[in-house]
Amino acid sequence: MINWLKETGEERDIIVSSRVRLARNLDSCFFPGRMETTTAVKVYQNISEALEHKTFQSFRLKDIPEIERNMLVEKHIISPALTLTPELSGFAMNQNESQSVLINEEDHIRIQTLTSGLSLREAWDQADELDDRLESKLNYAFDEKVGYLTACPTNLGTGLRASVMIHLPALEMTKEINKVFMTISQFGLAVRGVYGEGTKALGSLYQISNQSTLGDGEEIIIKKIENLSRQIASKERETRKRLIERNTVLLEDKIFRAYGILKHARSITADEAVRLMSLIKLGVGLELITDCTMNEIDRLYVDIQPASIQYLQRQEMDNMERDVKRAELLRNSF
Amino acid sequence: MINWLKETGEERDIIVSSRVRLARNLDSCFFPGRMETTTAVKVYQNISEALEHKTFQSFRLKDIPEIERNMLVEKHIISPALTLTPELSGFAMNQNESQSVLINEEDHIRIQTLTSGLSLREAWDQADELDDRLESKLNYAFDEKVGYLTACPTNLGTGLRASVMIHLPALEMTKEINKVFMTISQFGLAVRGVYGEGTKALGSLYQISNQSTLGDGEEIIIKKIENLSRQIASKERETRKRLIERNTVLLEDKIFRAYGILKHARSITADEAVRLMSLIKLGVGLELITDCTMNEIDRLYVDIQPASIQYLQRQEMDNMERDVKRAELLRNSF
Repeated sequence: MINWLKETGEERDIIVSSRVRLARNLDSCFFPGRMETTTAVKVYQNISEALEHKTFQSFRLKDIPEIERNMLVEKHIISPALTLTPELSGFAMNQNESQSVLINEEDHIRIQTLTSGLSLREAWDQADELDDRLESKLNYAFDEKVGYLTACPTNLGTGLRASVMIHLPALEMTKEINKVFMTISQFGLAVRGVYGEGTKALGSLYQISNQSTLGDGEEIIIKKIENLSRQIASKERETRKRLIERNTVLLEDKIFRAYGILKHARSITADEAVRLMSLIKLGVGLELITDCTMNEIDRLYVDIQPASIQYLQRQEMDNMERDVKRAELLRNSF
Repeated sequence: MINWLKETGEERDIIVSSRVRLARNLDSCFFPGRMETTTAVKVYQNISEALEHKTFQSFRLKDIPEIERNMLVEKHIISPALTLTPELSGFAMNQNESQSVLINEEDHIRIQTLTSGLSLREAWDQADELDDRLESKLNYAFDEKVGYLTACPTNLGTGLRASVMIHLPALEMTKEINKVFMTISQFGLAVRGVYGEGTKALGSLYQISNQSTLGDGEEIIIKKIENLSRQIASKERETRKRLIERNTVLLEDKIFRAYGILKHARSITADEAVRLMSLIKLGVGLELITDCTMNEIDRLYVDIQPASIQYLQRQEMDNMERDVKRAELLRNSF
């Protein structure tokens, strides 16, 4: 599971992962939103055949049990939108789950690659290579002037959405996070919380991504996000150092209380766990906590989600049962 | 320290200690409130001589450093009132600190005995014996009709205040505590929180004592408090069983989170510690926590108090330093 997560990777103490998504369509048929089931099945077959079978395995969504679907959503391997039309849609993924291709979601093809730390270029190279392989066997809907054609105009052109997941607890504590948000939007980039709803990011995890797919070329988009993320990571790192120097006891107390609760609670919600694990990540980053690795914690973010808990236990569970199992999993992890 | 605390003792899972206090005065001089310093010193000498020196050691309060005085108050060996007139007052205590005699507090003599669990009779017997020893050597102010004469009329007659310290977290959780309070006052007894101010008892620790010293004889007062305390303890025990059977996860979660915080916090106030230790006591009582004993926790209640922390460290500390030392002490205790 989540084998793409590595200890190494640039800025790994602050940047969890990098991610590239390419939207592509076949020029021979309607976009998925207007497609008949028979066409959808043909499209699924064409695309899964175009992928090499040795590295990729394809699935029609209707063949995947519901808990497993939700678990795949929690792992970001498939999107929630893909699960809305299980008769039409499908996906393929490679063995270590770092690459996936969504079939008949909003577009016929969504290529997704996920890499560890700040490594957008690597994610982009992998996506680009996969894209080339598919393009050599399929006819993409492409316009010389506009670029790749997509179901939604916000994806037109490059069809590229590049993003990094970044952990910014110290900038949140010092309230400097709003200045960071302003800088991000000044660069024409978007930022949103990974967990939680609205603007409140649960566990200080944010995703920074490009807003526009038109205009700038892929290289420029990638470079822009990489540069800005590196700057923000460096600011977060400085702020952490300043915090631990000036408020050692306060910060250590926060971190170790979170550790104590995660290590001993008998029932815990996913939201509370995400909030507390953020402090553990900070503690590992500051080398205050040494009995677990960044990698192990980042895996836990996924493993403690509702469907993943049930998938790991191979049984359906209600809220309270999940909270108990989650607490058990966390107790055993620290 | 606090050697009177034993694992054994009736109802030890719920009743911490039993306590007897006798107010006595000499008939030869004014009550301490109206006494000259020279008289006070003489009274101190007479009383300390009347105590056997082998088992009791006497101190004038002016010779005790301030931190140590406050530590003795936190241990309930001396009273806050005794520290108000250090030039006049003094005290004597035996080696295991289970018996003390306050000299020139509100009355010339306050005999205090402290025993473990529900053992008021034992505490009374010890106080009575000490009282007889003193009475054989000193002339008490005594009136045939009223009984022992005291500075304040609320202590007239027997001069006896008997009390038990009882831990009632389950009755608090189920909100049945108010019914218990009503029963206590119907029996003409008083109840108050041991920690915290006003009616809110911090850490669910209560003291039940007699309100009246006139009318009933000593035997009746002791019996009444013993019987009622035994009934309340039995009700608390039943409620604990019911809670753990019906809300296992909820209760275990509360208890182990408290444990996790006490075991890992880097800074903690006395109030928070008392609140959390109450859950640990409950956990030990329910045999959920087995790596510390009731005795160890009950000692901690005293050791974590502000003056005791400083006394143990042999240095003056401000609030924040104490919170850090307290957290360290607690971490090392679990």
